[in-house]
Amino acid sequence: MYDPDCVFCTDVVAKRNAAIVFEDQDTMAFMDYAPVEKGHLLVIPKRHYQSILDIEAADYMRVHNLVRKLSPILLRALDADGLNVGQNNGSCANQVVFHYHVHMIPRFNHNSTPSISSRGRFSDRQLKWERRLIGKEELIEVATAIKKELDRSA
Amino acid sequence: MYDPDCVFCTDVVAKRNAAIVFEDQDTMAFMDYAPVEKGHLLVIPKRHYQSILDIEAADYMRVHNLVRKLSPILLRALDADGLNVGQNNGSCANQVVFHYHVHMIPRFNHNSTPSISSRGRFSDRQLKWERRLIGKEELIEVATAIKKELDRSA
Repeated sequence: MYDPDCVFCTDVVAKRNAAIVFEDQDTMAFMDYAPVEKGHLLVIPKRHYQSILDIEAADYMRVHNLVRKLSPILLRALDADGLNVGQNNGSCANQVVFHYHVHMIPRFNHNSTPSISSRGRFSDRQLKWERRLIGKEELIEVATAIKKELDRSA
Repeated sequence: MYDPDCVFCTDVVAKRNAAIVFEDQDTMAFMDYAPVEKGHLLVIPKRHYQSILDIEAADYMRVHNLVRKLSPILLRALDADGLNVGQNNGSCANQVVFHYHVHMIPRFNHNSTPSISSRGRFSDRQLKWERRLIGKEELIEVATAIKKELDRSA
């Protein structure tokens, strides 16, 4: 339930060294320090699970209930137009930290580039998935805006 | 709860025109007809909701419980090494069908290309997100393999 080699267990849950937006007894939501888009949020269970294969049902539901609850709040706080919710399992699926976590990535119409595949059948856009390191001040600023919106909705 | 202009409501739920892996009273899992990877599965509520912003709590939990339940089965059936779970909201987040759905995309070590960003800090891999149209026979073949694994686990 606590993995001394896991950065989420040691740094985030134990030391609270993160721009935290929400926490209760079982879950935590905090800013990704290397966001794909402004407002990129991570939601985790406090207990350590590697992936969707070993997470217990109760913690899984708590995490996903929190994702659902935070969605409209994140969109309002960032004035975003869309949201990607994603959860990666395994290195080949781009899981980097092996503590179950859900990405919430706000998306913006003005950042979006419609694209047509070579077969002309799909309207999938070229979503940006690259991460960039940003300063802790900017992370805290965004976290504060989300917390304000969360308080407003309470 | 039923949208006559929605292809999931009309074609998938009503006509069952899909390679269905699982269904119960409230949910359905079927093969994406334009998979990103072999075994690309969609999980939906039977009732119509646009996104995470309007889906009711009970149906949301049913869908995500099914995602969790199907994860090890999908990995075993496809002999996959990883899994991306994703759910898109809004055009700018690449939502194409506006009926709440969760993507389950198996990933394979042999298809994975480790890559280092220009800053050398991240080990994110270049995941393939392009879709390709495949024949209905191939879809049914994969669906059958997953159903067999599902029966085995029951």
